[in-house]
Amino acid sequence: MSSARALVLERQHELALRDIEVPATLGADDVRIAIHTVGICGSDVHYYTHGHIGPFVVREPMVLGHEASGIVSEVGANVRSLKAGDRVCMEPGIPDPNSRAAKLGLYNVDPAVRFWATPPVHGCLTASVVHPAAYTYRLPDNVSFAEGAMVEPFAIGVQAAVKGAIKPGDTCVVTGCGTIGLMVALAALGSGAGRVVISDVVDPKLELAARYPGLIPVNVAREKLRDRIDALCGTGWGADVVLEASGSPRVYDDVLACVRPGGTVVLVGMPPDKVAFDIVSAQAKEIRIETVFRYANVFDRAIEMIASGKVDLKPLIAESFGFEHSVEAFERAASMRPTDIKLQIVMPA
Amino acid sequence: MSSARALVLERQHELALRDIEVPATLGADDVRIAIHTVGICGSDVHYYTHGHIGPFVVREPMVLGHEASGIVSEVGANVRSLKAGDRVCMEPGIPDPNSRAAKLGLYNVDPAVRFWATPPVHGCLTASVVHPAAYTYRLPDNVSFAEGAMVEPFAIGVQAAVKGAIKPGDTCVVTGCGTIGLMVALAALGSGAGRVVISDVVDPKLELAARYPGLIPVNVAREKLRDRIDALCGTGWGADVVLEASGSPRVYDDVLACVRPGGTVVLVGMPPDKVAFDIVSAQAKEIRIETVFRYANVFDRAIEMIASGKVDLKPLIAESFGFEHSVEAFERAASMRPTDIKLQIVMPA
Amino acid sequence: MSSARALVLERQHELALRDIEVPATLGADDVRIAIHTVGICGSDVHYYTHGHIGPFVVREPMVLGHEASGIVSEVGANVRSLKAGDRVCMEPGIPDPNSRAAKLGLYNVDPAVRFWATPPVHGCLTASVVHPAAYTYRLPDNVSFAEGAMVEPFAIGVQAAVKGAIKPGDTCVVTGCGTIGLMVALAALGSGAGRVVISDVVDPKLELAARYPGLIPVNVAREKLRDRIDALCGTGWGADVVLEASGSPRVYDDVLACVRPGGTVVLVGMPPDKVAFDIVSAQAKEIRIETVFRYANVFDRAIEMIASGKVDLKPLIAESFGFEHSVEAFERAASMRPTDIKLQIVMPA
Amino acid sequence: MSSARALVLERQHELALRDIEVPATLGADDVRIAIHTVGICGSDVHYYTHGHIGPFVVREPMVLGHEASGIVSEVGANVRSLKAGDRVCMEPGIPDPNSRAAKLGLYNVDPAVRFWATPPVHGCLTASVVHPAAYTYRLPDNVSFAEGAMVEPFAIGVQAAVKGAIKPGDTCVVTGCGTIGLMVALAALGSGAGRVVISDVVDPKLELAARYPGLIPVNVAREKLRDRIDALCGTGWGADVVLEASGSPRVYDDVLACVRPGGTVVLVGMPPDKVAFDIVSAQAKEIRIETVFRYANVFDRAIEMIASGKVDLKPLIAESFGFEHSVEAFERAASMRPTDIKLQIVMPA
Repeated sequence: MSSARALVLERQHELALRDIEVPATLGADDVRIAIHTVGICGSDVHYYTHGHIGPFVVREPMVLGHEASGIVSEVGANVRSLKAGDRVCMEPGIPDPNSRAAKLGLYNVDPAVRFWATPPVHGCLTASVVHPAAYTYRLPDNVSFAEGAMVEPFAIGVQAAVKGAIKPGDTCVVTGCGTIGLMVALAALGSGAGRVVISDVVDPKLELAARYPGLIPVNVAREKLRDRIDALCGTGWGADVVLEASGSPRVYDDVLACVRPGGTVVLVGMPPDKVAFDIVSAQAKEIRIETVFRYANVFDRAIEMIASGKVDLKPLIAESFGFEHSVEAFERAASMRPTDIKLQIVMPA
Repeated sequence: MSSARALVLERQHELALRDIEVPATLGADDVRIAIHTVGICGSDVHYYTHGHIGPFVVREPMVLGHEASGIVSEVGANVRSLKAGDRVCMEPGIPDPNSRAAKLGLYNVDPAVRFWATPPVHGCLTASVVHPAAYTYRLPDNVSFAEGAMVEPFAIGVQAAVKGAIKPGDTCVVTGCGTIGLMVALAALGSGAGRVVISDVVDPKLELAARYPGLIPVNVAREKLRDRIDALCGTGWGADVVLEASGSPRVYDDVLACVRPGGTVVLVGMPPDKVAFDIVSAQAKEIRIETVFRYANVFDRAIEMIASGKVDLKPLIAESFGFEHSVEAFERAASMRPTDIKLQIVMPA
Repeated sequence: MSSARALVLERQHELALRDIEVPATLGADDVRIAIHTVGICGSDVHYYTHGHIGPFVVREPMVLGHEASGIVSEVGANVRSLKAGDRVCMEPGIPDPNSRAAKLGLYNVDPAVRFWATPPVHGCLTASVVHPAAYTYRLPDNVSFAEGAMVEPFAIGVQAAVKGAIKPGDTCVVTGCGTIGLMVALAALGSGAGRVVISDVVDPKLELAARYPGLIPVNVAREKLRDRIDALCGTGWGADVVLEASGSPRVYDDVLACVRPGGTVVLVGMPPDKVAFDIVSAQAKEIRIETVFRYANVFDRAIEMIASGKVDLKPLIAESFGFEHSVEAFERAASMRPTDIKLQIVMPA
Repeated sequence: MSSARALVLERQHELALRDIEVPATLGADDVRIAIHTVGICGSDVHYYTHGHIGPFVVREPMVLGHEASGIVSEVGANVRSLKAGDRVCMEPGIPDPNSRAAKLGLYNVDPAVRFWATPPVHGCLTASVVHPAAYTYRLPDNVSFAEGAMVEPFAIGVQAAVKGAIKPGDTCVVTGCGTIGLMVALAALGSGAGRVVISDVVDPKLELAARYPGLIPVNVAREKLRDRIDALCGTGWGADVVLEASGSPRVYDDVLACVRPGGTVVLVGMPPDKVAFDIVSAQAKEIRIETVFRYANVFDRAIEMIASGKVDLKPLIAESFGFEHSVEAFERAASMRPTDIKLQIVMPA
């Protein structure tokens, strides 16, 4: 083992920049990556402020971070797809490739998956990581490290868009204009949706959305979502795909009211408790409901969408912090400014 | 107008056998059918005992019945697919064929659909009806009138099986062993499912299911459904498709517990109120949820499954009543014997 | 009957501008439309120059044209979706809405469909037509009549993209850079494809394609298509979706060589004869092949893609002719300039 | 290395029963299996009689056989799903589980797959093999070793049925009544097809098919296939799914003639050369064409279909030979009796 500097969550409320041990040898199918940029996710902040997320409890010191880009520094003996010097981003969940789920192509729902910064697995807010080459993706020259570190959250949006099977010209609705809502809305727009209505109750978030042509912000504190959909789609019909990205327990009636007969609902937002769900309303329109758990087989898609200009994530990066200011960055993230869609940490060169 | 004898729900709790007026002329795309056999549906009984189902209120006298077989007596000028003397069954919902939903092939969710015995539309418990040829289906010689009148309820099962996209060798679970649960379970079995676990808390219903090889009854008052699924599918995996057919508000946790990662849930049962639904559990397995509203494009499938022997519905017909004993038949149906899966009324020759 | 001025193909090689009879009364579900702009399709030209297309022979005088926009002048008694003064475009095929195919949502493959300017059915190069409201689509204010008359050819591209089930970030290939190839390529791009390689052997056509960011022209007279795909997708993999739009009998080996394992081929181009097809090569990659016949349920999608700016068809309209110069327009079209992607005829005000 | 007795194809036309070397140690994710029964496939025979199949040439001695059942004798350190003594059958292709194709769930089309008895990879006609646990499947008690060795060929049928997305009550056509045709037909029937027409020109094969209720044999030397389909499905419509299993270059016109508008064709049979294919006919019905390459994720389905009685493969096993009579078995197989659907070899106890 050798050592690397890392941002360690020692326990709830206590972060430390200190050395951790890292493997000295490299598996034949692995690569070693010098981390460049890491985005701060709401889950990182939640482990910091609460010490757990649901059943996942931080019982031992854990390195945070799972949204990363970097540079390959060394490749394992079998690796042909990557070489030292390649600029890359990484898919943070590592499944058992021989599991039942993985054989079906559903490696994200393999119960054995190990995911960065989910206790007890260390994350990537550290100088160097070892990762399977199969889950490490080369960045095109026109995709920056900052964008590369956005691929992970954007991949959730792409997964939602793929699950929604969005067709060209679809009218979509995204409920919730936080980080995930924006990722989902931009993914929907880049997947062929003609227009994407995005709803929230916080104006500064909606103003951010309004900068993107094709996103139609609706403040549901002032306007009924269904009225807007009636105006766009014809009274009594509805949106082709409604993607729920708020997790708010009060939103589900609106979701069902706004989707068209035979339409699709994609559930991305994670409500803290069970919700009151109107099954008969869903049946009356015979809708299909898809659910999203992270992502599988979409990192390459997400990268291509960024590289091709289908989506521009740069305006969503509110601020970038040096690694030595990581604690400050987490304090800022914990303050939850509505327009801090993404804060990032850049490692020392 | 001419007249025909019919079973009329005059108002809640009041049935009468009396003449009603029927159209004397026939539309060019319609056929006239002499009704032979009509099954009694739970909805017919509910209109009789409660006078309404949700927002559908019986405000004027209405003929009951929507599960019918009969004989074509006359065909409209444009009809080529049928001729007088053909033995047939009828799809009871008539959409606007030019509606947005119908153009998409989703004619069952056309808001303009007119459905037999749903106020204010008359049903088919009458000597003769006029119906569009496009929604009238010829019965093969080896399908009896009694079976023909079972096509409508069985079509719901077939719709559920089609929506579930059951693949050969799937393990399925059906929650609820009433009429709809049995229709769904038999449709699943006839659609390639290797085995279908069916759950309920009433033993006589489960004993009826047990007579069908391939149906595996589980009394969830005595045994945990998940334990049985673990035994069948391997601990920690689950059933490929779970079809909910009880509408019981307590069943949804079991539904989510029993489906495999990447599996499918089909919601057929209609709970009377909103249910507490665990969205995060659904997401953790990234399941797909389909909903069922009646049926579209499956009557021919249902008939073919009966004709080919894939499914035998005859054991489910508990008793047959002459038309003149219709009120008695409805009283028997209202008494809700667990093994009265289907009661039928036969019109006078 | 009243009369209207029309461009009539009297017989092969003979066009006349003269009056034809039109219905004086309007069906309850129909609208009457004053035609504004009509595009000239290759099939119109082919009937003019050859007098037939395959089994469809011009035996009696026939009005040409099936790509039209116009203004509603009168609506039938039942029509609620449109009103006089609405700017519209029309889907030129009218199915039997009660046919087996139409009930399934596949109204384009209803054998009974009647299609404008396909013998013996008159087309729309006339002052006024009567059409079912269900196949008449309102144009948003920001879609011009010229664009409205492009919806029909673009709908073929959208149908191909929908059949291809293009996912966000897909790499697509379109073989053939004629009118249909461009429609398909632009539809693919607007459906989420990250990049679309388009191949041909005629440079001026490819130069037209090159003006669209995201379209990557390849002249296969000078460069192997497979080499370009290797460079883009990694050697030994391939494009996600290959859409064949040339109908050239020599292209099918390339099509199979360029698609990835598990990928999709969409056959749009219509080769004049049977082609030599390498089934074992298709099987070795276990590809799915979709075929396209006109379109169904995509006119609204096509309009929305134009209205939302996902696709800009205006640069493809090479020239516009007044109705009185229709014969000149057809002569120009028959001369087959490679950059005459679309010629249009505008009716007198 | 230790040694095991094996049937070795030394070179074209020369088989030998002799010892080969086998690995002494076992990988952590592997199991060792004592082979019980091995079926003879047409490809085994073809390597014997021709020395190659297409580009795959037998350049060094190779053990034949890839259809096997057996008993687990030893399990690797990580294996939890199997234990010594388990009765099993094996999927003969081993992919790279981290390949692009495998990550998508399409491990059968991974170009790196190693497949038993495909040069230069040894097959399983030997006393003992080492195999990944992930591709080794436990047999239920009611599935015999003989049936277990039929899972591999039957899996091709199941793959075809899954690709065809057969819906309950579908009318299917299978062209070709050889081993693969029968596997496909029985898989279609077990997947919900109401009836399966199976065509050939050899009566003894069709007589074998006729023993299965639901299979409808048609000798196309005496009867037009399309006429039978017209009688079953109504003139001018067609079968829902046509599965081509003959590889005969003359069959493809029939295939296209017999499928319904919007139907599906599944190409299983492998014609020796390119075929003349009528693309315009396929387009006129807008059919979907699926192709089959071996199988993925269906071995468990195939086993469940046998275990549940959905399909009975035992009547297709024409004769069983002791291992010492392997050469005789291959001579018999090479004689191509039409009713020798499957010959098997049983290893010494």
